[in-house]
Amino acid sequence: MPEPSVGAVRAYVEAHRDDFLADLDAWLRIPSVSADPARAGDVHESARWLAETLRRTGFPTVEVWEPPGGGLPAVFAEWSAAEPDAPTVVVYGHHDVQPVDPLELWSSPPFEPQLRDGPAGPQLLARGAADDKGQILFHTLGVRAHLAATGRRAPAVTLRLLIEGEEESGSPNFPGLLRERRQRLGCDAIVVTDTGMWGRDVPSVSTGMRGLADCQIDLHGPDVDLHSGSFGGAVRNPVTVLCEVLAGLHDERGRVTLPGFYDRVRPLSEAERELFARLPFNEAEWLRTAASRAAYGEEGYTTLERVWARPTAEVNGVWGGYTGPGHKTIVPTDAHAKLSFRLVADQDPAEVQAQLRAYLEHAVPDGVTWSVTGFGGGVRPCLTPLDSAVLAAVRQAMGRAFDGTDVLLTREGGSGPEADLAEILDAPVAFLGVGLPDDRIHAPNEKVDVDMLLRGAEAAAYLWDEMPDALRR
Amino acid sequence: MPEPSVGAVRAYVEAHRDDFLADLDAWLRIPSVSADPARAGDVHESARWLAETLRRTGFPTVEVWEPPGGGLPAVFAEWSAAEPDAPTVVVYGHHDVQPVDPLELWSSPPFEPQLRDGPAGPQLLARGAADDKGQILFHTLGVRAHLAATGRRAPAVTLRLLIEGEEESGSPNFPGLLRERRQRLGCDAIVVTDTGMWGRDVPSVSTGMRGLADCQIDLHGPDVDLHSGSFGGAVRNPVTVLCEVLAGLHDERGRVTLPGFYDRVRPLSEAERELFARLPFNEAEWLRTAASRAAYGEEGYTTLERVWARPTAEVNGVWGGYTGPGHKTIVPTDAHAKLSFRLVADQDPAEVQAQLRAYLEHAVPDGVTWSVTGFGGGVRPCLTPLDSAVLAAVRQAMGRAFDGTDVLLTREGGSGPEADLAEILDAPVAFLGVGLPDDRIHAPNEKVDVDMLLRGAEAAAYLWDEMPDALRR
Repeated sequence: MPEPSVGAVRAYVEAHRDDFLADLDAWLRIPSVSADPARAGDVHESARWLAETLRRTGFPTVEVWEPPGGGLPAVFAEWSAAEPDAPTVVVYGHHDVQPVDPLELWSSPPFEPQLRDGPAGPQLLARGAADDKGQILFHTLGVRAHLAATGRRAPAVTLRLLIEGEEESGSPNFPGLLRERRQRLGCDAIVVTDTGMWGRDVPSVSTGMRGLADCQIDLHGPDVDLHSGSFGGAVRNPVTVLCEVLAGLHDERGRVTLPGFYDRVRPLSEAERELFARLPFNEAEWLRTAASRAAYGEEGYTTLERVWARPTAEVNGVWGGYTGPGHKTIVPTDAHAKLSFRLVADQDPAEVQAQLRAYLEHAVPDGVTWSVTGFGGGVRPCLTPLDSAVLAAVRQAMGRAFDGTDVLLTREGGSGPEADLAEILDAPVAFLGVGLPDDRIHAPNEKVDVDMLLRGAEAAAYLWDEMPDALRR
Repeated sequence: MPEPSVGAVRAYVEAHRDDFLADLDAWLRIPSVSADPARAGDVHESARWLAETLRRTGFPTVEVWEPPGGGLPAVFAEWSAAEPDAPTVVVYGHHDVQPVDPLELWSSPPFEPQLRDGPAGPQLLARGAADDKGQILFHTLGVRAHLAATGRRAPAVTLRLLIEGEEESGSPNFPGLLRERRQRLGCDAIVVTDTGMWGRDVPSVSTGMRGLADCQIDLHGPDVDLHSGSFGGAVRNPVTVLCEVLAGLHDERGRVTLPGFYDRVRPLSEAERELFARLPFNEAEWLRTAASRAAYGEEGYTTLERVWARPTAEVNGVWGGYTGPGHKTIVPTDAHAKLSFRLVADQDPAEVQAQLRAYLEHAVPDGVTWSVTGFGGGVRPCLTPLDSAVLAAVRQAMGRAFDGTDVLLTREGGSGPEADLAEILDAPVAFLGVGLPDDRIHAPNEKVDVDMLLRGAEAAAYLWDEMPDALRR
């Protein structure tokens, strides 16, 4: 069967642009905010809408899946390849959206999509336009373009879409759903569509996300607040001890000091460092985005390497003693901190929590007691190896969608459920996403560039065509 | 003139015990809480009551002094010696009292004095019984006993009482009052009656109080809270920097690291260390009082030396970032701490604040800005030299009141206006006080041991007799 030419795919995508936008407009009007219990009905409605649209697209099997043990529904759709030896690909994304507050900062109602002229073509303004409804919907256009351009009646890979309904709430029920439905989700590769690219003119593919371990530390010193005149200087001050413990989490090279913290860290390869270095990174601009005056981090790494490929320890909050107006000269009884660690492959959140306990056991002196409370099991990091066949296929497909522009590699510093997908389904993960850094996801006035969604649809069309050969090599 | 015998002084004191207690009962019923604006009238009433009582005692001159620039009144009383070369002594104390909350923890109403049996004789329960009305009032009994036992019509020293009305509110107007009235307060020695002794059977004299410098530190990092996934590990976290700054305030020997902090610290003499070591200190008992599990402080010093004779740095409170329930993975924008330093002779609060600024200038890295806000000018430390003639006279007088028991030396870890007295009046300070560690001053159910007040009156009677010779030597 002939490889679909850029011309045929693009022609199909362009021809169906308006239908696609009309569908997206309808979907974006459903306020599927998973974090708001009052919107649970809308998340169900969003699932029903997506299921119906996937049926209309041609997926022979479409089901709405309720997670075991409760939660909001995911949508599953399957379209089998005709060839018995065709590979199976799971596409992951989500149909729930972030809350919209502060509502007063939106220039138009978040669930009434507005098509506007942007600096580089039309933009669609609405909550979920980029994260993630717009990107999920381009797969409907992509698979139809793939069929139209190749003359097929079924895709060249068996496609299994799994579109979650609780991603913006931390995917609490997703691992359970994956385990329950593992048989139905068996696959050779996983394509995650929930990320972005470096920039409008710099197509790129993300190769991973960091993991997360977080907790609260509570220290206890004297059983009552003590007069600092009568007792100051003669007992441990738990706030001072907390400061010592938190300051001691990093050494003078900016490295995390937990014993064994780096043991499982997969080193950044020279090849990947070179690829990162090719990105047109502007530190002054990055600092403006970070509303910061100076970059700082682990010695020996660039800013991008630090946020994408190196693990971190951050104090998210701290409190203890007297914090009201004026002064109160006490030795306080308690001190508290919230801590989070971003992890990279192949660190494990449970191991890092154990390392923190071992550190505290050693670092907290006599006279002060401590406890650590975790916030769940954390999130494992996820990383696509550079020699991955799926990654190669995605880069190839993106390159074709972007007219041969070199497709660079990035990573994401944040955390998502991708490691669960890879582990439970036992398949390699690659990221196919066309969001832009200025899409304002999670913020007021979220938007998506319409041209990017159309490029995403093209890339998907090429990808299903590339995939059988890529996985066979 | 003959030295008054113990017998005559004690006989006078015992004979007038009931009148003394009746007077004290009346005074304690006036709720002179200086911190409560609604009680300002009561503080004025307390001043009028004291003035009238001092007139009745025989002081030829009694005046109520309003501080310049506002505030609550002090009482001044003068009784000149007959001998033209007699020394002049200023007695300092205060007639205002601490607030009473939590009221529900009092076993009887705080301004309805109750005479009860204690483990070692009768106790009077009321706010201000020990701090400081009971102790001020013993001077009326003391000076009369002095006259009765020596057959004098005027004391052997010119007595000038200055009883402040705002001590429990930090004496905000006291230095101004001292400066305005300096001519009237000229003296050869200052006797402060507002402290206590080691224990019922261990008479002791305090030789000093620590000073105080306090402030708030504010650090600012990113201008907005940052997503710790997107930015964590690549910019300075102001909470981490604050922890480094506060942890860095002490070295591994428990010493304060501010540059120059110890330059002016008067070393503890071997003689004073020996005197401290003679006190029957029980560390287990002290830890129970401190509600603490372990003692800790500057290397090379005992617990008593640490709280009395060594300067300290304490973090009184700390806050920054997310402190609500659950987790929020941010790099916070701000971090704050309240700090106080207890100072010893001859440190200066303004110098210590300057040292803190110099330290921060060096310790806070690029990317984080800082500011320090002071809470006023602080309190200077006050220390009576061991070879002071006034101290010798007070020890001698206390020894006689306590039947020849060895009078040991202590200090106070807290801070008061004594350095202002010493400096503005340019005279040596000594402490004559008979409070006990279990008097619960500043707390519910404040009490005083009646026998201690009578011993205090005796000690004052002997002191006025000792003083002329002591100052002449």
